[in-house]
Amino acid sequence: MKAELLTSVLTELNGTSADIEASGVISTDGLMMAAVLPSGMDEDRVGAMSAAMLSLGDRTAQELNRGNLEQVLIKGRHGYVLMTYAGEEAVLTVLAKPNAKLGLIFLDVKRAAESIADML
Amino acid sequence: MKAELLTSVLTELNGTSADIEASGVISTDGLMMAAVLPSGMDEDRVGAMSAAMLSLGDRTAQELNRGNLEQVLIKGRHGYVLMTYAGEEAVLTVLAKPNAKLGLIFLDVKRAAESIADML
Repeated sequence: MKAELLTSVLTELNGTSADIEASGVISTDGLMMAAVLPSGMDEDRVGAMSAAMLSLGDRTAQELNRGNLEQVLIKGRHGYVLMTYAGEEAVLTVLAKPNAKLGLIFLDVKRAAESIADML
Repeated sequence: MKAELLTSVLTELNGTSADIEASGVISTDGLMMAAVLPSGMDEDRVGAMSAAMLSLGDRTAQELNRGNLEQVLIKGRHGYVLMTYAGEEAVLTVLAKPNAKLGLIFLDVKRAAESIADML
């Protein structure tokens, strides 16, 4: 039931922009709670990499006096990975295209993360 | 000599915006090549965390089909860490304040990274 609610938020998020390719909600220990991914993309891989990046991002933010971690953005030549805390126990990971309008994506992802945090 | 040139680029970069608190050029194996940091911030810590984030960012970009890594941005409650490749063997790491205008910082950092890549 909760998974269905989460999936509906992700489906809506992916629909807000053609630049968003995939999204998932992952517990902070790396387990997938819900995902809307293109075929051929592996849930476990998205979950594992998200959890690893967040763990190191947390440590980096602490070590460099940036306060509690809120977001990690990775820019590759072929697109973005954006990880945003949705409450304290889950993370919203979004994959976006290389020419995505980042300002819009930050806004849509922030709203979706708030909805997800309210559900958990 | 090279360190002096790098330091002058970093000093100029830090001067472009009051939102930039610190910057450093780090070899991809984590050794500091030049840095303009506030007193009390440890060079080795900045170098070590930059190298660790880039290594995991590289892997994440590959695993999630984002192509070669270009940038990693960490947003904490008290500010940002932005890591950008400057050529293939060095990384420009910048620490910025929480309300920094990200668009301007991306632009200034991109220019500085190009200057640094030309020097190395």
